[in-house]
Parts: sequence; structure tokens; C-alpha cells
Amino acid sequence: MADKKIRAQLVGATGYGGLGILELLLGHPNFEVSALIARDDAGRRIDQVYPHLTGRCELMVEAPDDSTIGRDCDVVIFATPDRVSQQYAADLAARGVRFIDYSGDFRFTSTDDYARYAERHPSIKDGSHDNAALLGQNAYGVSEINAEAIATAPMVGNPGCFAIGIIIGLAPLYTDGLVQDGLVAVDGLTGSSGAGKKPAPTQHFSHLNDNVIPYRVLNHQHVVEAEMSLGRMGAGGGATVDFIPHLLGTTRGILNTMHVSLTRATTRDTILDRYRTFFAGHPFVRVLDEPPTLKGTLGSNYIDVSVFTAPGDRRAVVMSSIDNLMKGQSGSAMQNLNIMFGLPQTTGLDRGPLYP
Amino acid sequence: MADKKIRAQLVGATGYGGLGILELLLGHPNFEVSALIARDDAGRRIDQVYPHLTGRCELMVEAPDDSTIGRDCDVVIFATPDRVSQQYAADLAARGVRFIDYSGDFRFTSTDDYARYAERHPSIKDGSHDNAALLGQNAYGVSEINAEAIATAPMVGNPGCFAIGIIIGLAPLYTDGLVQDGLVAVDGLTGSSGAGKKPAPTQHFSHLNDNVIPYRVLNHQHVVEAEMSLGRMGAGGGATVDFIPHLLGTTRGILNTMHVSLTRATTRDTILDRYRTFFAGHPFVRVLDEPPTLKGTLGSNYIDVSVFTAPGDRRAVVMSSIDNLMKGQSGSAMQNLNIMFGLPQTTGLDRGPLYP
Amino acid sequence: MADKKIRAQLVGATGYGGLGILELLLGHPNFEVSALIARDDAGRRIDQVYPHLTGRCELMVEAPDDSTIGRDCDVVIFATPDRVSQQYAADLAARGVRFIDYSGDFRFTSTDDYARYAERHPSIKDGSHDNAALLGQNAYGVSEINAEAIATAPMVGNPGCFAIGIIIGLAPLYTDGLVQDGLVAVDGLTGSSGAGKKPAPTQHFSHLNDNVIPYRVLNHQHVVEAEMSLGRMGAGGGATVDFIPHLLGTTRGILNTMHVSLTRATTRDTILDRYRTFFAGHPFVRVLDEPPTLKGTLGSNYIDVSVFTAPGDRRAVVMSSIDNLMKGQSGSAMQNLNIMFGLPQTTGLDRGPLYP
Amino acid sequence: MADKKIRAQLVGATGYGGLGILELLLGHPNFEVSALIARDDAGRRIDQVYPHLTGRCELMVEAPDDSTIGRDCDVVIFATPDRVSQQYAADLAARGVRFIDYSGDFRFTSTDDYARYAERHPSIKDGSHDNAALLGQNAYGVSEINAEAIATAPMVGNPGCFAIGIIIGLAPLYTDGLVQDGLVAVDGLTGSSGAGKKPAPTQHFSHLNDNVIPYRVLNHQHVVEAEMSLGRMGAGGGATVDFIPHLLGTTRGILNTMHVSLTRATTRDTILDRYRTFFAGHPFVRVLDEPPTLKGTLGSNYIDVSVFTAPGDRRAVVMSSIDNLMKGQSGSAMQNLNIMFGLPQTTGLDRGPLYP
Repeated sequence: MADKKIRAQLVGATGYGGLGILELLLGHPNFEVSALIARDDAGRRIDQVYPHLTGRCELMVEAPDDSTIGRDCDVVIFATPDRVSQQYAADLAARGVRFIDYSGDFRFTSTDDYARYAERHPSIKDGSHDNAALLGQNAYGVSEINAEAIATAPMVGNPGCFAIGIIIGLAPLYTDGLVQDGLVAVDGLTGSSGAGKKPAPTQHFSHLNDNVIPYRVLNHQHVVEAEMSLGRMGAGGGATVDFIPHLLGTTRGILNTMHVSLTRATTRDTILDRYRTFFAGHPFVRVLDEPPTLKGTLGSNYIDVSVFTAPGDRRAVVMSSIDNLMKGQSGSAMQNLNIMFGLPQTTGLDRGPLYP
Repeated sequence: MADKKIRAQLVGATGYGGLGILELLLGHPNFEVSALIARDDAGRRIDQVYPHLTGRCELMVEAPDDSTIGRDCDVVIFATPDRVSQQYAADLAARGVRFIDYSGDFRFTSTDDYARYAERHPSIKDGSHDNAALLGQNAYGVSEINAEAIATAPMVGNPGCFAIGIIIGLAPLYTDGLVQDGLVAVDGLTGSSGAGKKPAPTQHFSHLNDNVIPYRVLNHQHVVEAEMSLGRMGAGGGATVDFIPHLLGTTRGILNTMHVSLTRATTRDTILDRYRTFFAGHPFVRVLDEPPTLKGTLGSNYIDVSVFTAPGDRRAVVMSSIDNLMKGQSGSAMQNLNIMFGLPQTTGLDRGPLYP
Repeated sequence: MADKKIRAQLVGATGYGGLGILELLLGHPNFEVSALIARDDAGRRIDQVYPHLTGRCELMVEAPDDSTIGRDCDVVIFATPDRVSQQYAADLAARGVRFIDYSGDFRFTSTDDYARYAERHPSIKDGSHDNAALLGQNAYGVSEINAEAIATAPMVGNPGCFAIGIIIGLAPLYTDGLVQDGLVAVDGLTGSSGAGKKPAPTQHFSHLNDNVIPYRVLNHQHVVEAEMSLGRMGAGGGATVDFIPHLLGTTRGILNTMHVSLTRATTRDTILDRYRTFFAGHPFVRVLDEPPTLKGTLGSNYIDVSVFTAPGDRRAVVMSSIDNLMKGQSGSAMQNLNIMFGLPQTTGLDRGPLYP
Repeated sequence: MADKKIRAQLVGATGYGGLGILELLLGHPNFEVSALIARDDAGRRIDQVYPHLTGRCELMVEAPDDSTIGRDCDVVIFATPDRVSQQYAADLAARGVRFIDYSGDFRFTSTDDYARYAERHPSIKDGSHDNAALLGQNAYGVSEINAEAIATAPMVGNPGCFAIGIIIGLAPLYTDGLVQDGLVAVDGLTGSSGAGKKPAPTQHFSHLNDNVIPYRVLNHQHVVEAEMSLGRMGAGGGATVDFIPHLLGTTRGILNTMHVSLTRATTRDTILDRYRTFFAGHPFVRVLDEPPTLKGTLGSNYIDVSVFTAPGDRRAVVMSSIDNLMKGQSGSAMQNLNIMFGLPQTTGLDRGPLYP
């Protein structure tokens, strides 16, 4: 453990994403937070914005501008919406400041891929990328699939919360060419915190409590990165993900249930063995005999996975569970930061699930 | 029952309060809805605003203006914030159109009383009443306490959701002069729907779920009407209500727990007997042996009450449970409308609690 | 409407299923409850078992025996587990007393069909039916599909809560032969009340709250009746239902999301039009443009359905939402009782969804 | 940090209390778990009992007997019901093995005190203590009040979950003799996990969800230790606690709202200043300007406290919030173990609240 800590600057510090990585960094032995930057709440202490931080962090939130972003730090973490990190990327790259971004800005390594994503995104009008020249240097941040690239990339695109559960959950099947027509039907169940802290009718307590609300049916932007990742695994036969997100009346968690037809009859035991081999050495992937539950990963960075087959073993169902704010967001970011700076992946991420 | 239905116009039709009375009116044998009026959502069909009404109501929402309010109807229901019905009251009174109002505008029968309320209210700056001359003609709408006045008043002020549970719950004790110093400590637990349908940080699902949030500690405006009602019962010794509202992560319901010292030792059985006598003939008040539960009244117009005494019988605890949107709002309004038009109080209100 | 009410005897009166039909019967203009029978709680008043019924029903619960079952009534309602109504069926049939049963005992009209169901059921060891001779006289109680048979059958098997949402949701597609290979992948999301009122680890609050728990993966017994019903529609090409039930931390509601490949490209609009035609005249089926929500049917007998297609229109997703204790159980039973006794299907079922 | 770890044996390892301290010990730098002992689940691996522990702990659960209890360890933790540690206490004391107990067995330092508690307890029939001779050697485990005694006591009685929030919340007022007649009215709101993992009708999801259930009104056994602790503070004028526990539909957390009349007018600012002085140096007590919230301490060992006064400053309301399984149980136990073994109180307890 070196004397000098890695200085991380946090942009978008007052959203749930910023809060999540702040709390992980506060408990991390090798990192320190150099600055909290956010448009909202600038000028307030972070423990006034989030009273549960009382006694834990007294940093002042600063407003973003060209001089603050990337100042006096080893890495910048953009916990910001799409099209924010794009504005600063060229400058940071030129100054040699590495960064990780929570949005879709640097999840894609070609302008074509990005354009496919952008046209699906509800708030991006124009499919062109402000820093197209950088695409290709960046790494897509699914730690379990792409650690080598993440380790050295100047910029990492942290994956979408739904996408990571789909990609890790199906990676062995796509790698082995087991998915008929590359087609998977996915029902994703998500807690409300993925929508962030901004009040909205869909997130209004009286509306969401005890409810299930399907939305963006067959039209969610996270599908694009899942299709690209899965479709290029193994022999690269492509992937089609029919995805229905369902908003639940819970705060945290994503459980994806994924249905595929198999190209050849394969028993459940064979598949589970393959999964255990595939994910050996990946400390956050737990392959379970029983179906994963939402609460089994709550508050932790684990992704719990299981697989079942239908009679005849020609169809399989895969389920994966994550905490959407941990493995689905800040936990993955922390894991990626560990990889970027040569630390063990689990450093600062040893918090287990909160149960009951 | 005559052929002709009573025509009710609904102002503020698209909030939770408007929705509640609309649904009761739709199922009522003696009323019909003449118009839905609201500033928000004007020009949309109500079943577009609330899809759960599909196949139940197709009325168009109209914008409010001087010509629409009170047009072609027997009664106007203002399910609106403070200071709305005040604007129309003189005109309606002059035209002989009776009305009931959900806000504090007509809960008080003197300008002094109103001023005390107004200064406590978070959004009323000025304590003067726009139609002070009408105060005195109006009736305060706690049906169980004030039915005689309600029956003939040109305008009825529907009570506050917290106040009604406190007033009915304590009425026998104050009437009998049993409350030491007129002082009661009340912890009120409320579901979130009392705050209406407008998204807000406190009502944001991720914040409120699994939470309890005390607010407006010792400073809630509903206390004023509770103190006035209770303080004038029996010998009229006054009342002081120390009230702490607690917002819960539930949609509906208010449970008030109320602590008093007694002026003379009185057993639990004596008090329960007195309560049963006091509320005989009031079909919505249920005096229980066991503590009331929040869900025991959910979706119904009941108020469940029980009383316990401490060893020595010099201190008592009263608990009351209501559905805040029914007995705490639209159910009481419907009950008052029945009284205003000479119908049995229970007409259109026979829906039992939804359990489990 | 005649003066004389139809006398309904309720067996299994103290479970959630019994409670549900009791409350519907109490509010029904043409029925009266002749007796409440249950093994548990015999000798107690029903409002002691369920305090929310205080003031609404004071009937005493009676113990079941050969003399009480079917005594002095026009119809018996078995809100009981599998293998209970079988014991009394022959006797009731001989005496001409019609009955409706909530379990799987009379959902199947042949011994082969019943055996397929029984072997899948977690608590039925032996696949033989105690009253095999009666199978064929009974009617399977999906009101929208089978009203003609229900109207005259001596015994009606009320459908399983998951099955009814799947069958109604997919009936137009199977009828029209649109489902490729007859195969559908279904993710069912259910509230906890479907498991009844008996405490169990899975239903323990601290475990289930904020959780999602997949269970009986690809192995739920309700699939059998869904496959039989759907597989015999249209040209009768058979059906395979890959079904994953997910237990949610909500009390009520079932939302099924169902994925099919289409035998021919069909646009969403074409399918929605077909659904609207198919269900014309069925007052409880609402075909929506937007995805149905769990809370959109809460407390009511509605089933809300919508359909979406993937780009290319070769794959469709159907979603249906019901209240599992209403349309999924007691509401359907009430609807079937109306049909059995020649009443309009909606009588006593006009309660709308409880929202918010 | 010494080489050798403190060996802790855990009895009652498979309840929520056992789980809580197990997880804290697993993450503690100075302790190791020597054995998991429990009557239920003996012979199973703990990660089979609690699948969320997969990859975190593989210890086998052992059955309790005279030879296992206290074997090869430095301290025994009894996360067991009343009357269990009493059976082993004399033997452990004789062998010099220190222990901490979650039940009421060693919360009282005289047989009179214990008898008062025992007669209030729902499951203790006989008020006599099996090891009365040991009472007086033990320490009552409210770390903030009693650290000196805890540090050296051979046995520590971990406090009741409701009691600790009441005692810490009111300690400054009772110490200063500010509470009129020593009387306080307390409404306690609790999540369901305090009742443990055993399924029961009150904890059944369908019953508790969206509900509030007052219970043991003015009759809860935790009151005894609160009255004794508070009543002996300052000049020792005694304490009377009128306490109403309310079970909420949440998993974790206790929020107590406490009403007192003051012996002399005292401003809110004066009281808050006094609280801040009183709790200076106590890292887990946070005195807040705003009301504490349930979720503000969730998953952490904090107790958040605030105080408000009524107009005239003659009455005050104190609110305190804890996680009932942390500061209300295992967190306090860990804090006490740190004190018992001379470690900083915060060691192994640095986990912050899980928000949102």
C-alpha cells in the first residue's frame, strides 16, 4: 500500500450515482476524493444535501467549469447524464487525466455503434459524438469481460445497469454459440433508484408503491450495448435482445429473467458447470443452484446468476440479480477504478448484502 | 328517491381529492357529475389522466373560469388548495349554489379563528379572508359532531385529514372534561397520498420507501381546527394539541396515537363504554377492543378507535385509524353531501376495507 | 329480480379466498350467505377472525362435516385446497346442489388432463381423481372463454390465478394460429396474497419486503391448464408455456409478460384491433394502448391487456394485469356465479380499482 | 494490531441477531468466529441457511450442548431468547469466559429489578433468576452510558432495541432533572425484523405490508430497563415511560418520538447545545437540527437524535432513530465487545447508512 493516495474528482456528485461512488471512495484505503462537483447544490456541504452523511463527509460541493474539471487529480469520475463527459473528454485526454463516465458517452468504440445507441436514447437528439476521434481509445467497462482494456484505457464507459446484468448473465451461452438465432427475451425488473433522485410522476411514491410499471417496451437504449457485447462473443453471430423493463415498488435492485432457445440440447448441470468455469476467478459473480433473489445482492457488488432448462433441454432460462446502484453503477465503477490503477478488484468493495 | 339526480360539479377534479370524490359520485345512486373542472389536464379525458378509470368515466376535463364554476349544478365540490373556493364563494352564495370545500377556507366560523389557522399554514401569507362576511354561515364538516349545521349550511368546510382522526378520537374525553389541562400529545402516522399527486423530493419513491419522516414538528396547521373543536366541547376548557406528523412509506392511511392525563381516575372499560354510547348511531365509527390498525380501514369510510389506560387509570392512550383519502377527505365529503341533501349518511359509502 | 335471494354456502371461509367471495356476496343484491364453514376458526365470529369486517358481518364460522356441506343452500363455494371438493362432489351432484371450486379439482374435463396437472402439483401425490366419473360434466371457469358451459354445468372449476391472466392475454393469438410452435415464454410477477394467509418463510415480511423471489422455475402447476386451454384454441395446434413465477414484495396483483414469435408478420395495430374485437362485449377485459400496470386493476375484477411488437413485426409481447384475489380468484368466482344463475356478469362486481 | 485474534463463539447463530453479529465479526480486524452454534439448522453450512452469505462464510452450524458452549474461545455471544444464557452463565463465569447476551437475562443488576422485568415479559412465567448470585457482576450494555462497567464486566446484557433509543434519546433530560414527574409518553415505530425470522401471523407479508399495527399497548417489557436507567440518572427521581410500540411495514429501523413536560422553561437551542455537549466523544450519536428519519441510520450503528420545544418552552419532543438490528442489537453488541476488549468503539463498525 503506497503512502500517496489516488486523487479522484467526482463530477455529478449529488445524484445517486455520485453519492454511491463517494461513499465507496470514503471507505477505500487507496483513494481520496479531491473535489465534489455538481451543478445542483453547489455551495452546500454534501452532508447538508445528504444528512445521512453527517459525521462522515464535510466536503463542499463546487460548481463545474472548465477550470475545475480535471484539476489537481489523478482520475475524474463523471456520474453525469449523457453528453456531459463528451464536453471535457478531449481536454482531459490531452492533459493525460484518465476518466470513467457513467453515461453512454464512452461505452462504444466506434461512431457507428454510438449512433445506434444515440438514436434509441430518449434525450439525445443527434447521433453524432462530440469527440468521435477518441472512440477506439476508450474501454467498455464490464469488468468481468473487458478487464485488460480497462486496465490501460484513458477513458472507461461504465455500463448501463440493465446491460451489465444481461451481458454477464448470458456471456457463457453467447461465447459458446448456444443461443438459437442469437435471440433472447428478457424481462428486467428494476427498483426505482435507477431513475435518479429527481422527482417525477412515475417515481412518485403514491403511484409506484405496490405497483409494477412496464415502460419503454422493446425500446430501451441499454439493449444496444447488450446486443453489441453479446453479439461479438464467440463466433460473433450477433444478438437480438427483446427487452421489457418493469419498474417495481422497491428502491434498489435489478433482476433479469432471460429466455433462450438452445442450438443443441444441453443439460442444466452442464450449463451450470460451464458458468462456474467461465466465472472462476471473478470474485463478484456467484453462480447459484437456486434462483437468485433481488435482496440477495442488495447493497453489495455481487451479481448472482442461475440457469434452468425446460424439459428436453432445448430451452434455457437465465436469471441474474444485482444491486443497480452497486454492480449496476457505482460498484462497477469502483471495480473498474481498481483495475485502472492496478489494485485488486475487491479493494473497498467487501461490503456484503444487507439482509434482512 | 326521486328520478332526478343531484348534479355535482367537481373543481380540482384531477388531484387525488378530486379523483376520490369522482369515484364515489360515479357509484352513488342519487348524484351525477355535471362537470370536471381543473387547471391541470384541461382538455383531456379523465380516463387519460387516470388510466385505471378506463371504461368507468369518459368525461372531459374543463378549464376553470367564472362562467364554468357553479354552472348548471346543485352543488360544487372544491377539491382545491386553500384560497380557491374563497374566490368563488360570494358569487355562489348569491346564486344559492351550495358548496363543499376541501381546504381550510371554510372550516372556521370567525375571522379570528381563520386568522389563527392562516398564520400557521405554510402557503398562506396573509391571514385575512376574502369572504369574511360569509364566515358564520358555513359549517365545519366533521359529520359525527356537526351534522345539524352541515344539513342546512350553504357551504361546508371539509375537515383536515389529521384533524378528523384527532377530533373524533378525543371527542368523548373532551366532552366529559376528562383531559387534564386540555393537553394531548399526538403522534400522527400518515401515508404519502395526503400530499397529493404532485411529485416532490419528500414523496420521491427512493427517499420515502422504507422510511419514516417526521415533519412540521409541533407546527402543523391542522392542529388549529382540532384545538378549536376539542376546546369548545363540554364545558369548553380549551385544548392544546402537541402534534408530530410522521410520513410513512405507505400510500394511504392515518393512525393517530394520543396521550392524555385524566382529570380523574377512570378505568378502560368505563371509557370504552362511554365511547360506544357516544358514537351509537354513527355508522362509520367503530370502537374496538383491540388497537386499530392502519389497514383495518383502508379504502373505506370507517374510523376505528380504541382506548387504553396506564396502571392507576390516571393516563389514557387513544388510537384512531382512517383512510386519509376516505374518512380523511373524499369519504367525509360524500358523507357531508349526503347530509346536505337529506340522504342517509351511508349512501354510496358501503365499500368495506380492502384486506389483505 | 325475484324477492328470494340465492343462498350460497361458503366452505374454506376463513382463508383469503373465502374472505374475498364473502365480501363480494355481502354486497351482492341477489345472493345471501347461508353459512360460513371452515376447519380453522370454527366457533368464532368471522369479524373476530377478520376485525376489518366489524359491523359488516357477524356470521359464526362452523366446522365442516358431511351434514353441513351443501345443507340448505343453492350453491356451494369451495374456497379450499386441492382434494377437498372431490370428497363432497358426488354427494352434492346426487342432491343437485351446484358448486364452484377454487382448486384444480374440477378444472379438467378428463382424467388424463387431471393426471397431468396432479403430477405437477406440489402437494398432490396421487394423480387419480376421487370422482373421475364427474369429469366431463364440469366446466373450466374462464368466464370470457367458456361462459356457455359455465351457465349450465353442475360444477365449475375456478381457474388458477396465473393461468387466467395467461389464457385471456393470449387467447386471440392462439385462436388465430399466430403463435410460432405454440411456444410462449412468460414471466409472471405476483403479489404475496396468492400464497394465502398461512405464515411461511417465503411470506415472512422481513424476507419478502423489497425482494423479488423467482420460484418453481419452469415447473408451476398452473401451466397445465394454460397449455390445455390455449393449445385447443383455433386449429388446436397445442401450446407450450415456459413460465417463471416471481414473488414480489406487494400484497396483491399479477402481471404476466408473455413473449411469442409470430407465424406471420403482423403489426401492433392489427393485433390490438383484433384484441378489441375479440373481447367486445366482455366488460372486464380492457385492451389498453399503454402497458398495463399492476395497480391499474387493484381491488377490481378487470384484466388489463396490451400488446407490442418488435421491429419487423415477427415477435410480439403481450402483458396482462389482474388483481390475483379478484379476477385471479374471488372476482372470477363471482362472475361465474352470476353466469351460473343467469345474472349479468357485472352484478356485484362494479368496484373500481383502488388508486392511488 | 496484535497477531492473535480474539476468538468469539456465537450461540443462536442462525437468527437475525446471530446473522448480524456474524457479519460484523467477519469484517472485524481483531475478531474471528470460533464456532456457530444453534439449535435450528445444526449440521448445515451457514451459507445454505442464508444464501446471501455465499462466498463470504462457509462455517458449519453446530448443535448446542454443555461441551460446545464456551469451548476454545475468548468470549461467547448469546444471540438467544431469554433464559438461555442463564443456563450457562455460572459455568462460564467459573471458567473465566466472558460473555454478552442479547436477552434480558443480564440487563439487570439486582433480583428485584429482574423480577419486575420478568413479570412483564410475555414468555417468562417465573420471575426468579437461575443465576441470581451473578447479578451485580454484570453490566447493562448501553455503551454511551455505561462504558466503564462494560469494559471489565464478566458478562454484559445487551439492551433491548426500543430501550436503547429511549435511554440515549432522553439521557440528558433525565440527568439534568428536566422531566416533569419523570413522565414521558413514547410512540415507538419499528420495522418487522425485531420480531426475528420465525414466521408469524403478525409478520405475514400480506398482513403487515402497508399496515401499522400497535401492540402491547402500555405493556412492553423493554420499558422496565428504560425506566430503571432513566430513573436513576441525575438526582434519581425515577421515571415512568408510557410506551406504545407500533409495528410498521418496513424491515428495519426504530424511530421513537418522546413527549415530556419540562420542569423549567428551556429553549430548543439550549437543549440541543446540552445534547451536543453530553454526547461529545460518542461517535455513534448524531445530534441533528432536523428531525431524524428512519432511513438516515439504516444499516449503520448511528443513533440520530433531535429535540423540539412547544411554544413557551415548557414541553419538549425528542426523536431518536436507529437501525434496530444494528444500534438496536448487533451493532451495540459489537460496540460493547470492542469496549470489553479494549478496542476503539468504532472498530469494525464504520459502515455508513445505506441510502437511498
